Amino acid sequence: MQTTSVLNDYKTSVDKALTELLNKLTDARSGFSGRASLRLLDSVRYSVEDAGKRIRPTLALLAAEAVIESKPGTNLIGLDQGICERGLANPAIPAALAIELVHCGSLIHDDLPCMDDDDLRRGKASNHKKFDEATSLLAGDLLLILPIRVLLSEGRDYGIDSWKLSRAALKLSEAISSMICGQALDMDLSTGRLSDGDIDTLTLMQRCKTGALLAASAEIGALLAGADEDCCRLFNSFAHKLGLAFQISDDILDATSSSEVLGKTAGKDDQQNKLTFVKLYGIDSAQALAKELIIEAKQELRQTGLSTDKLELLADYVISRNY
Amino acid sequence: MQTTSVLNDYKTSVDKALTELLNKLTDARSGFSGRASLRLLDSVRYSVEDAGKRIRPTLALLAAEAVIESKPGTNLIGLDQGICERGLANPAIPAALAIELVHCGSLIHDDLPCMDDDDLRRGKASNHKKFDEATSLLAGDLLLILPIRVLLSEGRDYGIDSWKLSRAALKLSEAISSMICGQALDMDLSTGRLSDGDIDTLTLMQRCKTGALLAASAEIGALLAGADEDCCRLFNSFAHKLGLAFQISDDILDATSSSEVLGKTAGKDDQQNKLTFVKLYGIDSAQALAKELIIEAKQELRQTGLSTDKLELLADYVISRNY
Repeated sequence: MQTTSVLNDYKTSVDKALTELLNKLTDARSGFSGRASLRLLDSVRYSVEDAGKRIRPTLALLAAEAVIESKPGTNLIGLDQGICERGLANPAIPAALAIELVHCGSLIHDDLPCMDDDDLRRGKASNHKKFDEATSLLAGDLLLILPIRVLLSEGRDYGIDSWKLSRAALKLSEAISSMICGQALDMDLSTGRLSDGDIDTLTLMQRCKTGALLAASAEIGALLAGADEDCCRLFNSFAHKLGLAFQISDDILDATSSSEVLGKTAGKDDQQNKLTFVKLYGIDSAQALAKELIIEAKQELRQTGLSTDKLELLADYVISRNY
Repeated sequence: MQTTSVLNDYKTSVDKALTELLNKLTDARSGFSGRASLRLLDSVRYSVEDAGKRIRPTLALLAAEAVIESKPGTNLIGLDQGICERGLANPAIPAALAIELVHCGSLIHDDLPCMDDDDLRRGKASNHKKFDEATSLLAGDLLLILPIRVLLSEGRDYGIDSWKLSRAALKLSEAISSMICGQALDMDLSTGRLSDGDIDTLTLMQRCKTGALLAASAEIGALLAGADEDCCRLFNSFAHKLGLAFQISDDILDATSSSEVLGKTAGKDDQQNKLTFVKLYGIDSAQALAKELIIEAKQELRQTGLSTDKLELLADYVISRNY
């Protein structure tokens, strides 16, 4: 299996499904577009469509696949047959799309002038540079809450039972709350309000800011596919380790790559005096730590007893990627 | 029954319950405060505690009461015995608190410099004047998504079944989405991007911005108490009419009252050239329209066949209040 081609397949399917979802939401008959400002919807589309690596939805879909394919006689229809097909489609699809919407929304708010004040995101002007602050604030707001609606409403259409849906929505809302708390800790650190910038603080901050949503992706994917609590916990723990490795590799890329390759402003951490793993450990030790975390993450994965080859590919990709 | 004393009882109980909820959420053992920036939590508390008329949670609680007390042999424990008591407590309590959190969050974002840029709210400095823009942005974000967590998690502790909870969370997420779209339409209108500022546009905008959350309050309250779909629809329709009347009276108060009495900047609509019911109709006709809407709202209420005296008091209060 080729890492890039497997992940590309998922990315392509997620891209397509997100566009279909946005079309459905903004269809006049859905009653949504009639009520929404067109500029707001343009701004949402701008930050959601054709952008990003789609790691979180891929994680949710792969976790669900691993659980389902372990059940004798169960086969999911291929993603190429349409991620939005009903029936035997992957039951994590509504959650996967919802989670990616959350991620896109959080990036819009992170880039705002009062936050990280960034002009470049995913290779193009950040949302408020393309639109305006008020529109971006509201687009980010919408992308924090709309995903709950997508999960519960699309999930119901997929025939997922209320117990699973309410648990998944609770986990997603907890993850989003953590993410926001993590961003607040980040602001406390970068404005000097919190001076004890040690490794524990940094790890806690990143666990909230990046880890929580990644962990929720894997856990909710497994949950919707019918995994028991122990299995869900292993997926959560796997993705938290993956998340930390992901963040460390992000810190390394920020210090070593270019804005052109990254699609976002490089060298920003140093410039804004951010507390990073590179700053605390140096590049080589940070790299070694990330590799160690990926080994540990895979161990969690194997404890599920499921076939998790594709998830292991994803784990390797997280620290080998160049953007 | 005295309108003010009935509403004051509910307000007092809601105030107390919100403080208990925030204490619980920020208790170190809940795992929340350990992850959150203290400044963020202070900012959330600042905008949630001891502030506002608590109309939305009161609406949810009264709708639930009306449904439950129509069932033979069912008696709710009095609110004075503790809104947070388990057992026979009003099943709409988790939703009522969740909805008030949403409302408080939306006010924080509405007041930000890139939006309505207001320094005064509920008789004190607006959130970003007391804290800073980044903290207020994140506090508003948290108050948009935390309510879903509160509804689902507290609701489960109250013994509400998953079907009702997932429906309530869906309705709440739809209402919040509408509210955000309404605010975007408001920005479109006040920046001149939408020039056709007629009565239909204004009504649509206010239906989203104010009506949706009020309607969700009444509908979710009824739903959690076990009302059927027709009854829920009547409560929704009642609260939409109430919401429009509420907004018209807000427009009138903005034009006729003082900042001191209102606890927020008076005369703002005119100053920002906002499209309002006063601007379109003049004060007298706007007042007549609000009265007419309250009559219609009560008619919806009576169609439920329930005992809705307290809700009618609330409806009268909405257009007779002076702040």
